[in-house]
Amino acid sequence: MTTSRREVLLGAGGAALGAAAMWGLGTLEAIAPEDVGRARISCHGAHQAGIATPPQGFLALTAFDLTEGTDVEGARRLLRLWTEDIERLTTGEPTITDTEPELAQLPASLTITVGFGPGFYDKLGLRRPSWLKQLPPYPIDQLDEAFVGGDIALQVCSNDPITTAHAARVMAKEATVYATPRWSQYGSRNAPGVTTATMRNHFGQLDGTRNPDPAEEPNLIFRDDGTSSMVVRRIHMNLDTWDELDLPARDIVLGRRQSTGAPLTGEKEFDEPDMAAKNSIGFPVIDVAAHIRRARTDDGSQRILRRPYNYVDLPRAGQISNVGLVFIAFQADLEHQYLPLQAQLAELDLLNQWTTPIGSAVFAIPRGFRPGEILGEAELAVAAQSDR
Amino acid sequence: MTTSRREVLLGAGGAALGAAAMWGLGTLEAIAPEDVGRARISCHGAHQAGIATPPQGFLALTAFDLTEGTDVEGARRLLRLWTEDIERLTTGEPTITDTEPELAQLPASLTITVGFGPGFYDKLGLRRPSWLKQLPPYPIDQLDEAFVGGDIALQVCSNDPITTAHAARVMAKEATVYATPRWSQYGSRNAPGVTTATMRNHFGQLDGTRNPDPAEEPNLIFRDDGTSSMVVRRIHMNLDTWDELDLPARDIVLGRRQSTGAPLTGEKEFDEPDMAAKNSIGFPVIDVAAHIRRARTDDGSQRILRRPYNYVDLPRAGQISNVGLVFIAFQADLEHQYLPLQAQLAELDLLNQWTTPIGSAVFAIPRGFRPGEILGEAELAVAAQSDR
Repeated sequence: MTTSRREVLLGAGGAALGAAAMWGLGTLEAIAPEDVGRARISCHGAHQAGIATPPQGFLALTAFDLTEGTDVEGARRLLRLWTEDIERLTTGEPTITDTEPELAQLPASLTITVGFGPGFYDKLGLRRPSWLKQLPPYPIDQLDEAFVGGDIALQVCSNDPITTAHAARVMAKEATVYATPRWSQYGSRNAPGVTTATMRNHFGQLDGTRNPDPAEEPNLIFRDDGTSSMVVRRIHMNLDTWDELDLPARDIVLGRRQSTGAPLTGEKEFDEPDMAAKNSIGFPVIDVAAHIRRARTDDGSQRILRRPYNYVDLPRAGQISNVGLVFIAFQADLEHQYLPLQAQLAELDLLNQWTTPIGSAVFAIPRGFRPGEILGEAELAVAAQSDR
Repeated sequence: MTTSRREVLLGAGGAALGAAAMWGLGTLEAIAPEDVGRARISCHGAHQAGIATPPQGFLALTAFDLTEGTDVEGARRLLRLWTEDIERLTTGEPTITDTEPELAQLPASLTITVGFGPGFYDKLGLRRPSWLKQLPPYPIDQLDEAFVGGDIALQVCSNDPITTAHAARVMAKEATVYATPRWSQYGSRNAPGVTTATMRNHFGQLDGTRNPDPAEEPNLIFRDDGTSSMVVRRIHMNLDTWDELDLPARDIVLGRRQSTGAPLTGEKEFDEPDMAAKNSIGFPVIDVAAHIRRARTDDGSQRILRRPYNYVDLPRAGQISNVGLVFIAFQADLEHQYLPLQAQLAELDLLNQWTTPIGSAVFAIPRGFRPGEILGEAELAVAAQSDR
């Protein structure tokens, strides 16, 4: 399995070893000191890069609103500009208008992924996919409008912080006439070369253990036409109250051991949890409200690809830290895969006591593009009325 | 020079190759995929680690105020706790009270550096070094009180974002009874393995070209007793107006080429600028107000060790980005080295038009400690009255 996955990733995208290692492939080849900086992931293909490609260390995710007066022609110009920007930046070339071209020289496995929110279709008079709308309100939500919605999403990921910040900035500058930033979120995973293990979040938990393998189950992530859907949730993590819990209590909340990630019914991280197992006095070993029980259904097709990043905000005076997770999930079918899981978790999950969703957005992800094509042009081609 | 510097660094601190490469040593040895995570820098020595040791990729810098009622005994207890924390965390051991011990397992060249602000001495009735006070007000300053001053500084640096955040958090938690966070600043340089070149800031400029070599000129950085001084300036960088400048104009502002870092009178980054050179019509090649001219004096002993980090703040709605530099400088003699340079730059520097200091703090840096010693205990031993 490891081999096939790696072959596919390297074959499809030319992902560098350092990056490939980050899906937990345990690559053992040594890397030269500058390999991380020079590594490239192809932006071309049936799917956009930045979804099934291994998650890089750093994220800059920006949501834009279309400016008033931007029509389909304007959107096409923006997407034409961005397509060229993506082709350049991911190969270490500055954009044509780049005023800090030096910051583009090391792509560091840069990927740039574009999504469209409901407003993109509605404002432009395009046919909006019927599933594409903001998530329903959940009782757990305490949404800050500053992190909700958006007409366009621009997900920039690379293995270097300044490469990431620069690429996000130049593309936002190019968009100025057509779209205005609504919110930005920054995050990080482990830095390159630190570990090949599953990422840990600020609670100390391994995050992503049960992710589908994009090479083995691509249909969980992409539709046949190469499109996908993206959910962004900004989840504040209350470390102060979490730290009052001892380790055994934490393990009950999660249903896994914080230390190893193993389910409470198993020994190792990737052991399949036994949801039916009872302890000596007849109670479930994995609590009925444990996070791992509530985060799954019996339907194996109801899984999602998590690609989250830890965030660190500036604390307020007197506050020790102000942290959380930029939860990002991709799935082929939002209604069938994501919504049931989210509803189930919002209804009951021990972990909810320490986490608070403060941002929420949903985007349709256009298929990938080939040289000469414009990213997202299929979406621009179908007017709303053609659906009536 | 390269060899001697590297030998000293590796000899003194056991710095990993990945880290050593970040002072621009051009190390060519390959690194194994997890070497960055496992690398350690010793916390023991004549000087505190995190100053002359190569700058790691990530910074969490917190300033604390002593809580009311904290006396010298309380401060000693805090420093005893912190000394043990530092010894543990820098070797990949969690602290005794650590509730996320998994996040301590990969030190990733972690260093933790402690400094004392003026209030530390005054509130505890200790003898404050005569030079230790906040910087004078400069006409360029637009200080936000949220980033000014502090009784204690805790500089946490490592090559992994989550290691850095975790170490900063556990030490702040341990301090709770004795000291309260006043401000935190986070930053990053290039990620490990990306490049061995001098760091670039958000303007695209190489930052640190003229840094003294800590191994060759330690007396610029440390006093004979192993102490030092630390200046923290939070410098907002106005990218929107900077981006209106074309590259030739930028080169004039800096006195160096943005592309290569070479002075306008030279060819390569490390060429010595010729401040007297005139162009064909008799004007100085390096402008009289160029940053590199104003950032130096004729006195070679008036140099400082810059160890800055780029910061990326959440932009406000409609804003493309909100970035700057956590400027950190170490020098043996604040009054002789730092203050003249800062006064000269504040008086005239073309770059000032695009940069705004929004935070400022000064700390005395205690000498390093050996196993069995407590960090900062020398400072606690001298009461203020003994100076009278």
